[in-house]
Amino acid sequence: MNRRELNAGALAAAAGLLNSGSAAAAEPSPQGSAARSGPLQIGLLMYPGFFAQDLVGPYTVFGNMPNTQVHLVSKTLGPVTAVPALTMHPTATYETCPRDLDLIMAPGGVESTVAAMQDPDLIAFVRDRGSRARFVTSVCTGSLILGATGLLKGYRATSHWLARDVLKEFGASYAPGRVVIDRNRITGGGVTAGLDFGLTVAGILIGKEQAEAIQLVHEYNPEPPFQAGSPETAPPEITARVRRIFAPSTEHMRLAAVRIAAQPGF
Amino acid sequence: MNRRELNAGALAAAAGLLNSGSAAAAEPSPQGSAARSGPLQIGLLMYPGFFAQDLVGPYTVFGNMPNTQVHLVSKTLGPVTAVPALTMHPTATYETCPRDLDLIMAPGGVESTVAAMQDPDLIAFVRDRGSRARFVTSVCTGSLILGATGLLKGYRATSHWLARDVLKEFGASYAPGRVVIDRNRITGGGVTAGLDFGLTVAGILIGKEQAEAIQLVHEYNPEPPFQAGSPETAPPEITARVRRIFAPSTEHMRLAAVRIAAQPGF
Repeated sequence: MNRRELNAGALAAAAGLLNSGSAAAAEPSPQGSAARSGPLQIGLLMYPGFFAQDLVGPYTVFGNMPNTQVHLVSKTLGPVTAVPALTMHPTATYETCPRDLDLIMAPGGVESTVAAMQDPDLIAFVRDRGSRARFVTSVCTGSLILGATGLLKGYRATSHWLARDVLKEFGASYAPGRVVIDRNRITGGGVTAGLDFGLTVAGILIGKEQAEAIQLVHEYNPEPPFQAGSPETAPPEITARVRRIFAPSTEHMRLAAVRIAAQPGF
Repeated sequence: MNRRELNAGALAAAAGLLNSGSAAAAEPSPQGSAARSGPLQIGLLMYPGFFAQDLVGPYTVFGNMPNTQVHLVSKTLGPVTAVPALTMHPTATYETCPRDLDLIMAPGGVESTVAAMQDPDLIAFVRDRGSRARFVTSVCTGSLILGATGLLKGYRATSHWLARDVLKEFGASYAPGRVVIDRNRITGGGVTAGLDFGLTVAGILIGKEQAEAIQLVHEYNPEPPFQAGSPETAPPEITARVRRIFAPSTEHMRLAAVRIAAQPGF
């Protein structure tokens, strides 16, 4: 087996070749922050019970960007089990993750996210890195974690469709859209929106042409076999049933948000 | 944190509730094999350097199907590092994986897949379980692993677009389509096709209504920001560049296939 296959750099190295003869330049950051030297620094958060797809979708894109270091960040370097059950290893801790990130991303979950929103260490980490990062981002209910840090106050954002109404508790306003960009906050919809989010971000960070190459390498040419991907398009009885099943968890998210936003200093 | 979040059963339990009041029944298997009693048994193959998204996409669907056990199968229970760099833990070995599976799935990779095609233990395992499984399936270049077992001889199949031409070396015929079904062989296109593949399979195994609920829970309502998901739709210069970058690996796949198909008894 080719040893390079085991590195995030494997396809990134290939993607790097895309630079050859290409005039594509990264677009300027919406916040116009000064360009850093060295590789792009990206931090993807891991916590017990996060949705594997929320992280793997964007990582599939970011892990193949040229001149990019991706850090999988958790409280410790111990294994973290996602949903569905998949035990993975972080590569950095809250302490060892670079202080200055180009992008930080929080994935979502269900009750696990309610717990993460109320984990002081996790929130302190995301608030700290987020306060300096060029881009503060999330996929799915990860936006509730951003909300809990206060970093979405006064911003438009999205979340998993079941959690849309929770955003306002944090002073954010829900905006429709698969990927919502408001200044340097970029939030994606539920779970699978992470692929659209990742490519959108890649377009901003490394330019459209390179993002298109990454899309082609991963044959992202989706053809869902059913029309049930959103509450607006799914059969109404399916939407009602899913809403009913998740009603307790949605209420847990809202109650946690209300509690967090009521804390002094929020 | 809710302990149940850590189990593949977390959302499966929720999805199980979808049964309530639902008349949806699983459609009969195309090969009409006898229904097994007990939970559906699904084996997802892991090997060093496989594409994380190839497995996590379908697992996001299968891991949330009611009454389903998913086994993440590798040579040993030691950690396996995917591409991009993500170290994960299998849950079963070639020895401990159930003998009779409802479905076996091989994910793809690049040079890692060339190695997997030529790994006698891996091939013996896939051939053994595949010879009895209700469905023999793959995502991306995983179809070359199926090809190497001989299980695609005389079948229509697909693969990652870069590897389409390799299928014929194994006596399979390439068929266009995001997901190709020929009797009990179900093959998906490159990487992200795993989501479409997973939902298609869920529709067959547990019925359309439950598959739609899983699609809605994961908000699979894709909106790629660019039109570059296939060699037919991407800008021609992007397709040409990606093809050039991967030409050596594509040739390694073809040469390995020719070698394997020339072995006595293939």
